[in-house]
Amino acid sequence: MLDRVSDYDVFLEDCPARTTLDLVGDTWSVVVVSGLGAGALRYSQLRERIGGISKKMLTQTLRKLEHNGLVEHRRLATAPPGVEYQLTALGTSLLGPVSVLSRWAEENTDALLEARSERSPEHALG
Amino acid sequence: MLDRVSDYDVFLEDCPARTTLDLVGDTWSVVVVSGLGAGALRYSQLRERIGGISKKMLTQTLRKLEHNGLVEHRRLATAPPGVEYQLTALGTSLLGPVSVLSRWAEENTDALLEARSERSPEHALG
Repeated sequence: MLDRVSDYDVFLEDCPARTTLDLVGDTWSVVVVSGLGAGALRYSQLRERIGGISKKMLTQTLRKLEHNGLVEHRRLATAPPGVEYQLTALGTSLLGPVSVLSRWAEENTDALLEARSERSPEHALG
Repeated sequence: MLDRVSDYDVFLEDCPARTTLDLVGDTWSVVVVSGLGAGALRYSQLRERIGGISKKMLTQTLRKLEHNGLVEHRRLATAPPGVEYQLTALGTSLLGPVSVLSRWAEENTDALLEARSERSPEHALG
């Protein structure tokens, strides 16, 4: 297609770009990538930045992001030894898209809550 | 905060904006919202547009989007009777953010696949 710069298309069945969307659209991924947006953070700093994230979830999310080349860590020569996380160039390129989505979520949550309160749970579909 | 236009903040524990992110970052929501981006579609047209989506998943996603005020349907006076879905104004405002995210996924899936193939499954975390 003329407006397409890649072979991937989220409208196509079994397209790997959908797996990418699963990965990067995930709420914790969005929040962790945004959290690292201002620069490298130690694990404990990142956990402080992100209210209410469990150690398990933060560890899992970092591992997933790292596995996919979006985040990298380096060991700090401190005592006690620490680990610092930062976005890779690929991760940094995701910062714009996830910020736009987070901002939309922050700005439109009232409208969504209002819509939910106005609607009955049942809806006809056909 | 100065740069904030809403009371919601995805970095805050229990912030409803996280629920919004859960909802709109979901891959099928992204694809369905994008699929309705060019205008209203009948259920069968939408299902054709989105390769590999099951009826159950499309119905569920539409119901969720409708329940949250992002999509609306109208019955068509056709024989057999049909139903047409379209984005609401709120849903249309989400089109930009999800398009940016889909486009990123399409453009960067190769890089993610490459990163995955280069990395061993085990990673130190601390």
